[in-house]
Amino acid sequence: MRRANMSLMLRSLRSGDPRSRARLATETGLSKGTTSTLIADLVGLGLVREDERERTGAVGRPGTAIAIDGGRVFGVGMEINVDYLALTVVDLRGRTVHSAVAALDIASTPVSEVLDQLARLIEDAIRLARARGGQIVGIGIGAPGIVDLDSGSVRFAPNLGWHGVAVARELAARLGPAAPPIRLENDSKLGAVAEFSVRENQEIEDLLYLSADVGVGAGIVAGGRLMRGWSGFSGEVGHLPIGPQGVACPCGRTGCWELNVGLNAFLALAAEPGDVVHDRSVPLEERLRILRGRADSGDGRVLAALSAIATNLSIGLSVLVDVLNPRMIVLGGYFPSFSDFLIAPITAALEARRMDLGSSAILVGSKLGLTSAARGGAQLVLEDVFDDPTLASAV
Amino acid sequence: MRRANMSLMLRSLRSGDPRSRARLATETGLSKGTTSTLIADLVGLGLVREDERERTGAVGRPGTAIAIDGGRVFGVGMEINVDYLALTVVDLRGRTVHSAVAALDIASTPVSEVLDQLARLIEDAIRLARARGGQIVGIGIGAPGIVDLDSGSVRFAPNLGWHGVAVARELAARLGPAAPPIRLENDSKLGAVAEFSVRENQEIEDLLYLSADVGVGAGIVAGGRLMRGWSGFSGEVGHLPIGPQGVACPCGRTGCWELNVGLNAFLALAAEPGDVVHDRSVPLEERLRILRGRADSGDGRVLAALSAIATNLSIGLSVLVDVLNPRMIVLGGYFPSFSDFLIAPITAALEARRMDLGSSAILVGSKLGLTSAARGGAQLVLEDVFDDPTLASAV
Repeated sequence: MRRANMSLMLRSLRSGDPRSRARLATETGLSKGTTSTLIADLVGLGLVREDERERTGAVGRPGTAIAIDGGRVFGVGMEINVDYLALTVVDLRGRTVHSAVAALDIASTPVSEVLDQLARLIEDAIRLARARGGQIVGIGIGAPGIVDLDSGSVRFAPNLGWHGVAVARELAARLGPAAPPIRLENDSKLGAVAEFSVRENQEIEDLLYLSADVGVGAGIVAGGRLMRGWSGFSGEVGHLPIGPQGVACPCGRTGCWELNVGLNAFLALAAEPGDVVHDRSVPLEERLRILRGRADSGDGRVLAALSAIATNLSIGLSVLVDVLNPRMIVLGGYFPSFSDFLIAPITAALEARRMDLGSSAILVGSKLGLTSAARGGAQLVLEDVFDDPTLASAV
Repeated sequence: MRRANMSLMLRSLRSGDPRSRARLATETGLSKGTTSTLIADLVGLGLVREDERERTGAVGRPGTAIAIDGGRVFGVGMEINVDYLALTVVDLRGRTVHSAVAALDIASTPVSEVLDQLARLIEDAIRLARARGGQIVGIGIGAPGIVDLDSGSVRFAPNLGWHGVAVARELAARLGPAAPPIRLENDSKLGAVAEFSVRENQEIEDLLYLSADVGVGAGIVAGGRLMRGWSGFSGEVGHLPIGPQGVACPCGRTGCWELNVGLNAFLALAAEPGDVVHDRSVPLEERLRILRGRADSGDGRVLAALSAIATNLSIGLSVLVDVLNPRMIVLGGYFPSFSDFLIAPITAALEARRMDLGSSAILVGSKLGLTSAARGGAQLVLEDVFDDPTLASAV
């Protein structure tokens, strides 16, 4: 009961400005005495603070304003991708305090080594949190494939070549007993969670996020809720049979969509073999910057590649629009680097298929870029604190 | 507040057996006095009754058992389809008390005449309810197309040839001021609501319903909730670009899926022009019975048609499985008449594309058949009574 009331109070503080105990009591329906006790507890956990300055402009006697704090309560988000590992540290107010992307060709690296690197990145984040006098309440990790939520393991990630990797258990073993709890989720779903939380128009409840590295996946938010499917397998759109006919995919099927819209398809179209943009030891962000520069200077091959990607993207997006009717589609992964080359032709193609005004979707490039899945991972574990504030230890 | 508590009590009674006032008070957290008053109110509205017999087997003093009644509180559901109008009357306990299907070639009938016929069917239902000493609390109507919920109008229904038909307003004008409230929804979504409520395995939360008359549409239940999309346009799968290339569809696109899985495709494949099964003045159920008989007796043309339909269905269903990851797929419309010819080959095709155990979906034929959308419409308006029991007038 106390936990539920602390959760109610913390969520209430998340939306809106700092405000007095009296107003918080009215808003939550709790007594003034209970409200004061809960706020004292939340202050003790480092989750809220009393604002020094008096509130002004309010009717009645001004009181000390209570605000969400959480500047020392951190969620760590990570992404295991084909070409990189990403890490981001977010505080309880949603501010990113640290980000890192490390280039790594995961499919050709032994699994144990990838796990070692992940553990080292987490240890760095733990040190950073300690240096700020804070704590990490959890680690949310995204992986490009089918994930078992309960055990925190990757069941099948075709583009990593991973089958049955117990990520949470392996990392816990490396980090020791003091490690924060670890949660694993599909990367596109985490990306959708992150994009949904930073959307500008809060009235949008139906959002489709398309991740695009070597693999392509969708994260679906429907009616304001993440849609997982019965076994977390929803949004496996990279393997829809709308790609190049007859071409084999690592997933075991042929003709998968990601084979003509994924990163490898774009790179193959955009540059000769041997070109620096194919060198996986060069960070992906750097390679995308090079290609972006070429597009801006009118490189015919890059422009033709982007045109082909736009056409192929339109085919799959029109399927997703008909099935899901999203209000907003966010293009993630490598797409945002080329938004101004992709958005207009895709929007035109979707409009040409429109049956009714109500089927239009707003198409935008992600502002979170390659870090959106990691950010979503951090939000996932921070959300646990809003559900149960006692997960934060007393400061 | 009183309404909310009445709703809480009525919903509480919906699940589980008849039980005592004392137990209901415990379950709802309301005081015994409030519980007794609420039950008296609900009895007055004809929604619950006191069971004559004493409860047995319970610990403590046996009391009179309270049960949901509602045998005189009806919801009317209707479906406007390409080939027929369907009506069903369902009582508050979910029992169907009346059903009717009337053959009608709607695209070649003036809209006003269709509305006249709908009004007559509703008037019959109102008379039937009165004869049983009861009342109709609402009318839920499904239409095959894009529906505007707020105004109760059809925005675009390509297979009916309807653009902007104000169904609710037109029917209200025909029925007069005493008419029950009318709600309009997409037919496939209503079908999904109905199929979800009659599913045998209550643990299934993710269900895909495929309606199939001339048009094909999907109703999606995700995480136990109907997914509408931002403008109610989700599940427009009949117009996915996976049908016969280049063939024009009434929707304005070409190559739509319903052109090779819809009823017209099946009929064209299954029988020569001029055959009785093409005669739209013959009820659809009768025509399907004839074709089913031919399939059972080994008619090569019908069997080849069913084989082609199964193949074409597999293509679209594999797309929907990858996007939505449903636990169960219910084939509605004309499909259930041929379940044993369709389920096995489609299941095999989906299994061949399976990437992980977690992607398997259970495929079944609808048991509600052509009436599922109508049944869903009735449930929709009955649900309003569970939200606000005062919608039922005192008996």
